[in-house]
Amino acid sequence: MSAMEDHPLSYSRLGDCARNVESVITRLMADKLAYPEMLSLAAGFTDNRVLPESLVQAALESLSITENRSHLQYGMNRGRPGLRRCVIDLLKSYPGEHDLDLDEENIVITNGSQQGLYILVQMLCDPGDIVLVESPSYFVFLELLEGLGVRAVSIPCNEDGTIDHSGMAALVSSLESSGELESVKLVYLMGAFANPSTRCISESDKLGLCDLLRGLERKIPVVEDMAYRELYFDEPYPARTLLAIEEWRNHPVIYSGTFTKPFATGLKVGFIVSRNRDCLTTLAKIKGHQDFGSAHLNQAIIENVYSSGEYHKHLQAIRPHYREKRDILEAALLENGFKDAGWEWDQPLGGLLLWARGPEGTNTRIGSPFHKRCVEKEILYVPGDLCFAEGSPENCVRLSFGALEKELIPEAAKRFCEAALQTG
Amino acid sequence: MSAMEDHPLSYSRLGDCARNVESVITRLMADKLAYPEMLSLAAGFTDNRVLPESLVQAALESLSITENRSHLQYGMNRGRPGLRRCVIDLLKSYPGEHDLDLDEENIVITNGSQQGLYILVQMLCDPGDIVLVESPSYFVFLELLEGLGVRAVSIPCNEDGTIDHSGMAALVSSLESSGELESVKLVYLMGAFANPSTRCISESDKLGLCDLLRGLERKIPVVEDMAYRELYFDEPYPARTLLAIEEWRNHPVIYSGTFTKPFATGLKVGFIVSRNRDCLTTLAKIKGHQDFGSAHLNQAIIENVYSSGEYHKHLQAIRPHYREKRDILEAALLENGFKDAGWEWDQPLGGLLLWARGPEGTNTRIGSPFHKRCVEKEILYVPGDLCFAEGSPENCVRLSFGALEKELIPEAAKRFCEAALQTG
Repeated sequence: MSAMEDHPLSYSRLGDCARNVESVITRLMADKLAYPEMLSLAAGFTDNRVLPESLVQAALESLSITENRSHLQYGMNRGRPGLRRCVIDLLKSYPGEHDLDLDEENIVITNGSQQGLYILVQMLCDPGDIVLVESPSYFVFLELLEGLGVRAVSIPCNEDGTIDHSGMAALVSSLESSGELESVKLVYLMGAFANPSTRCISESDKLGLCDLLRGLERKIPVVEDMAYRELYFDEPYPARTLLAIEEWRNHPVIYSGTFTKPFATGLKVGFIVSRNRDCLTTLAKIKGHQDFGSAHLNQAIIENVYSSGEYHKHLQAIRPHYREKRDILEAALLENGFKDAGWEWDQPLGGLLLWARGPEGTNTRIGSPFHKRCVEKEILYVPGDLCFAEGSPENCVRLSFGALEKELIPEAAKRFCEAALQTG
Repeated sequence: MSAMEDHPLSYSRLGDCARNVESVITRLMADKLAYPEMLSLAAGFTDNRVLPESLVQAALESLSITENRSHLQYGMNRGRPGLRRCVIDLLKSYPGEHDLDLDEENIVITNGSQQGLYILVQMLCDPGDIVLVESPSYFVFLELLEGLGVRAVSIPCNEDGTIDHSGMAALVSSLESSGELESVKLVYLMGAFANPSTRCISESDKLGLCDLLRGLERKIPVVEDMAYRELYFDEPYPARTLLAIEEWRNHPVIYSGTFTKPFATGLKVGFIVSRNRDCLTTLAKIKGHQDFGSAHLNQAIIENVYSSGEYHKHLQAIRPHYREKRDILEAALLENGFKDAGWEWDQPLGGLLLWARGPEGTNTRIGSPFHKRCVEKEILYVPGDLCFAEGSPENCVRLSFGALEKELIPEAAKRFCEAALQTG
């Protein structure tokens, strides 16, 4: 008797959608397993070397004194009140946002920020509905949409990553005339150090978008994914969040964030912030059905670290580390003639990624000669086409300097450039 | 400016379903907050007093030596391979199941067992579809179904909790003639110390069910929720799981379990086991969209505790504790004349709950005089009607001896009996 059977089941519509999504991560991991010497510029992981081991341990010790073991017990579905107050403190720590009028009722703690995004799409979008996303956008979010049968449509963006407002107005008109505007249920933005482009959205772009959305008959909710916001190198990106901008008042705005992306991804503590009561109530109900509350231990650890002041200190300490890794990657790309060969990129000011655009005619898709050469040279990257709702352009790559040890970055960049710049 | 706005949003069908689910837990918690002296026989929590604080701390210290900080980093979507092998070891530890032919590919680690159940329903059931559940069944699962727009229909059960096979055959016939059988997409069973009844399913009942399902044109998947299996007081319930019973081979069977319900609910590490490859692949894809992997730290802690042998030792140590609490509750109910007044229950042989059925005419629903008297006496219970797909009968209560300190159980039972046995 074998341990596996291959009898097909009868799936729901959602089950069928999800089955048909090709997971990029799975594909990349298969490559990695087939080539053990593979160096990865693909994984969006953080650097093990700067993970806060002693802080987590100290937090657990401190909890053993203060918590009467309740950190090992179920918690509230919406999350620990104290941790929700830490969310507010974090949001208020940014310049120009000290006055944010939020309280713990505006927060739901989620199982990583991904769960918050997933529930938002579940609760707002039926299969066939549309979510507007930037171009490029976060490929895991695009997969999430596909898995729920929801269509992604790109917000037109300029070469420099800013929003193309006249293009956006034209898109809305065209959706209106095709009758599809009523299917647009959500706008997904990454406000700071976006994955993959590390682009940030300026206040003027935020205002421009607000003008457009305010003119529509129905208020389309906007979610601002700020997963990378805390991972700036020198200073926070100066634009305020939608939550803090007066013009966005009275528009359904959702802020999505995470404590653990910049701190310790293995803990998975995210949060959703909104002023829309009904939105949070519905989100919390669905969360109740999915897990009736995120793991309480992880919340208690983060709350303890945050409240002690060590959270901010730790981030302050790791910023130069990632900035240095960015510098090493950029220097190695230059040294290996990447720019001379016509590739360009904007220097990342935060995050873990570098988004590069190749000269005309470049094709980095999975299965392309470019991709094959990289696999042969045992180097992984994320093909840029995966980050676009429409699957094009195809001349971009996402390179990550997050996980790879800094000593290996030059070799990885060398292999990558050799493969990239070779022709045929 | 207020921190909350009350503008309604436009929801998906799922969003609308979820909004309309009345959450029992939320209601019970509101009662508890309004009456601070409230004693709760309602919460399904475990006892803080026996939570494994030093084991969790020792595990974290040990991980700091062995893991090179990878326990604080993202892990695999399907879960740690070592932890998946612990699942197999756990399943094989039961009498008559040493030979289970499973390997780590048969396992997906989930964010608590609840996430596994949620994804299963998502992937198998469209809104309007039917899941067959026992009577009574787990009320959080019933809420989950309602939130996804899925209908629960009761499997007829006898007074003693066994499956009424002729009733079940009649149900299937009736669904067949009404054309609804094709909408039945899943059967949900709790095999051991079920919530709320603490009933277990015998092998002969499992075989009877198999006979019936094998006769149908389409193979309806069956999930066996074993969340309470490890929480036996004296010995494991002797029936094997569906996974281990030859007759169930070639039928899509899913086993749902958890490491943390009996150990430390604040860690939320569950698992799904199946031999159906396609089922697991689809489940893992949806999990990837929801969180791309459960919190790695929690998995690493459980794997460490399990592998060291301390997991089983800890369970062995806490079993007498819960047995004693059961004894205290039963003694107090008897002492306060509960049985004399016509209430009956089966002695729980595992779990955290006692399921009692009142004499004819008893109505324990929320809002009933019975319920009001309990709230006035500051005692909480779970009304039994919430545990039935059809909302009836209404003469039952679920009492939990899990969370309440054992010294408080007599007072809680006294209040409850006073309220229950008072008339008018």
